[in-house]
Amino acid sequence: MLLRKYLKSFPKLQNVLTQKRLAQDYLKVEVTGESLKFPHVWLRDNCQCDACFHRSANSRFIDWSQFDLNVKPRDVSQDANTVKVIWEDGHKSSYQLNWLKFRSFTPESRKTYDMTIYKPTKKTWNKDTFGEAMAKFDYTEILVSDEILHNWLYHLSVYGVSLIQNTPDSDKALDAILEKVAFPKMTHYGAKYTIQTVANNKTNSVAYLPKKLQLHTDLSYYEYGPGVTLLHCEVQAEGDGGANLLSDGYYVADYMKQHHPEQYKLLIDTEVEWRNIGIENGIEFFKLHRSPVINLNKHEELSRIHFSIPQRSSYFPVNIEAVAPWYKAYTTFLELNNQYAAYLKTDPGDILVVDNLRLLHGRNSYEDTTSNVRKLNGAFLDWDEIYSRLRCLTVKLKNLDTIY
Amino acid sequence: MLLRKYLKSFPKLQNVLTQKRLAQDYLKVEVTGESLKFPHVWLRDNCQCDACFHRSANSRFIDWSQFDLNVKPRDVSQDANTVKVIWEDGHKSSYQLNWLKFRSFTPESRKTYDMTIYKPTKKTWNKDTFGEAMAKFDYTEILVSDEILHNWLYHLSVYGVSLIQNTPDSDKALDAILEKVAFPKMTHYGAKYTIQTVANNKTNSVAYLPKKLQLHTDLSYYEYGPGVTLLHCEVQAEGDGGANLLSDGYYVADYMKQHHPEQYKLLIDTEVEWRNIGIENGIEFFKLHRSPVINLNKHEELSRIHFSIPQRSSYFPVNIEAVAPWYKAYTTFLELNNQYAAYLKTDPGDILVVDNLRLLHGRNSYEDTTSNVRKLNGAFLDWDEIYSRLRCLTVKLKNLDTIY
Repeated sequence: MLLRKYLKSFPKLQNVLTQKRLAQDYLKVEVTGESLKFPHVWLRDNCQCDACFHRSANSRFIDWSQFDLNVKPRDVSQDANTVKVIWEDGHKSSYQLNWLKFRSFTPESRKTYDMTIYKPTKKTWNKDTFGEAMAKFDYTEILVSDEILHNWLYHLSVYGVSLIQNTPDSDKALDAILEKVAFPKMTHYGAKYTIQTVANNKTNSVAYLPKKLQLHTDLSYYEYGPGVTLLHCEVQAEGDGGANLLSDGYYVADYMKQHHPEQYKLLIDTEVEWRNIGIENGIEFFKLHRSPVINLNKHEELSRIHFSIPQRSSYFPVNIEAVAPWYKAYTTFLELNNQYAAYLKTDPGDILVVDNLRLLHGRNSYEDTTSNVRKLNGAFLDWDEIYSRLRCLTVKLKNLDTIY
Repeated sequence: MLLRKYLKSFPKLQNVLTQKRLAQDYLKVEVTGESLKFPHVWLRDNCQCDACFHRSANSRFIDWSQFDLNVKPRDVSQDANTVKVIWEDGHKSSYQLNWLKFRSFTPESRKTYDMTIYKPTKKTWNKDTFGEAMAKFDYTEILVSDEILHNWLYHLSVYGVSLIQNTPDSDKALDAILEKVAFPKMTHYGAKYTIQTVANNKTNSVAYLPKKLQLHTDLSYYEYGPGVTLLHCEVQAEGDGGANLLSDGYYVADYMKQHHPEQYKLLIDTEVEWRNIGIENGIEFFKLHRSPVINLNKHEELSRIHFSIPQRSSYFPVNIEAVAPWYKAYTTFLELNNQYAAYLKTDPGDILVVDNLRLLHGRNSYEDTTSNVRKLNGAFLDWDEIYSRLRCLTVKLKNLDTIY
C-alpha cells in the first residue's frame, strides 16, 4: 500500500513498472514465422476443453466465481499445429495455432477479422457515383444460390442500396426474400404493409397519399429503427409519378463535416424528438424517440441518420437558444441530400432495398386515378439478422472453420 | 462578409450580437400570468392549419423547399385561449394557449413533459430495497383494466422488474399479455421459446441445461437487444433448484462509478464482442455485436448493460495492453452484481418480467429428473412498444388532449 502511494508521485515510473508486470503476463507463440503474444488471462478464459467450452452451444462454460485472474502457465509446449499449456492448478488447455492466429491482437489481424467477419467497410456515394452503388440482382437467383445471396447482402452492407428484379407479381413475393435472410421486423404497421393511396385523405400516414414524399428515413421514431426497407413495386404510376429519390446520408454527413463544420456539430449534438401518433388496425400507438439527425458510435464513425419532416415532433427538447440555429443546419442537410440524391423509378417486379439507418429516400407525387394506380408492398429487415446471414454464408463459402 | 470576418476577432462581442439578433426572433405569449417565449421559426414550422398539418396522420405537411427560415410575424393577436399570427407572406396560424404552454421551452415545463409523456424516471435498487422494486400484478386484471395495465408498465419502466401472478397453466398464456402491449420481439429463437432441459446435453444454448446460469443479460449479441424478458413459469423444480437471482445493473454501475472509478471507466470505454453461433429449427445464425458492458447515452446517463460469460466472443477487439485490466473490471462488476442481487423463486403461474437492457438475471442449478421437471415459456417485448402503450394509456387516463 505504501509503495503504491509512493509510486503515485511518479506516474511515469509507475507506468513502466505496470507495463513490465503486464508484459510477463503474455504467452509468446511462433506461428508461421511470426511471433504472436496472447495474455494468460485471455488464454485461460478461452480454453477450448469440454469442461470450459460447450461445443454444441458454442459457448464458454466456465464458472466465473472459480476463475483466477492471475492465472499462470506451469508448462508450455508447442508442436507444428498446437500449443499446449498446463496451468499452475494443473488444468490443461490446448490451442490450434491457426485458431490463435485468427484471434491475434495485432492491428493487421484485427483489421482482417473486422472486414471478413464482423462487418464489411461501407463506401459512400452520391448521384454521380450511383451507378457503382446501385447493383441489380435477380429474384430467383437470390433464392437458389448461396453465392448470389451472399453477394447481395455484402453489396447492401457496403453501399446501402440495391435492386432485386424479376419478382413475381404477388403481394406474397417479398416473403421468400425475407425468409431467406431471417424474418421481417415487426412494427405497428405489421410484418408487411401496403403503400397505396387511401380514399378520402383518411390516412394514418402521409405515405398513403399521392403527394410528394420529401426525403426521409422510415420510422425515425423507433429507437430500434428498421435496418433495411424493402419496397416491392407491384403496380407503378405513369411518367415521373411515383419515382424515387435516393440519397446517401453518410455521404452528406461527411460533406457537412468538411464544408459546414458548425452546422454538422449541431446535427450530431442536438437531440430532436421524432414522433408518430395514430391507430393501425384498431390499435393505438404513440411512438417517441429522441436522437440527433446524425448519430456517431463510440469510434466517432457514422452509425445512423434520422430524418423526417412529417414525423418530427412539435415538442422540441432543447434550450430555446438552440432552436433557430438547429433549423438552419437541418435545412442545409436536406438541401444537400436533395442536391446529391440519385433518381430512380422502379418498374413492376422490382424490389428497391435501402439501408434505412443511412439512406434517405423520397418519392415524386403522382396522380391517383382509376387508370393510374400505384401499389407497393413494403417490409423491413434488421441489420442484426442481415449480418448474421452474411457471416454464415461467408464462413460456408470461404471455409472459415477457424471461426469456431 | 467583411463584418463577419472582423467580428470573428471578437468572439464575445459576436456572441452578444448573435443573442440580440436571436432575441428578436421570439414571440412572447402571456399564458395564465406567465410570460413564455417561442421562436418564430418553430411557430411557423408547427402551424396547425390543415395545409401545414395533416390531422388524421398527426403529421407535419409542410413542403420544406418552400419554408422560410427567417419567417416573421406581420400581425399578432391574442384572446383568452388563442394566439393568432399573420406571417409576412400572409399565411395565418392559430395556436391554443394550453397547446403552447405544454410545449414551452422552460426547464420546468420540459421536466414535466419528459416525466409525464416521454419516459418515467428510473429508480435503482439492490437486494435490500428489492421489496419496493418488485411489485406484483394479477394476470386477469392486466388484461381487463387499462389502469392496471398502465400501472404495470409504469412500474416496469421505473424499476425494471415485476411479477405477474395467477397466469393460466398454458404455454399460450403469455400471448394475451404480449398482445395487450403490442407484439413479441422476434429473434432467431422465434417469437416465443421454451426453457427446458434438452436431452443428452445436445443444446444450442446453455440456458437449456440444468446447470447454474450465471448472472447475464439475454441476447447481448443483438445490437437491437430485446428490451424486456418475460418468463412464464409453468412447472418449477423442487427446493432451491431453478430459483432466480436478479440484480439491477444500473445500481451496480452507479456503485462502481463511485467506488471503482477506474474500473468503471474501463467498462464504459472498452468494446467487447458478444457472440452467438448456432442452428435453430434448421436455420443457421451467427450473431456478433460489439459494445461495452456499461453503455451511456448522449447525456452520460446509463442506457444499457451487456453481460454474459458464455456469449462473450473469444475474439477480443482491443489492444493487447487493454486485455488484463478489463478482465479485472469485468470480474468486479460480476462480483458486485452477485453481492447486491435479490433472490426470487417463481411458482407455477408466475410471469417474471425483467428489463433486459438494465437487469442481470441468473438461475440456480437444478436436478433434472422425470419427477423434478422445470419448464418456462419465454418471450421478449421491445421498449419502443412498451413506452408507446404506456403513453396511449397515460393520455387516455389523464385526458392529456394537448399532446395532439
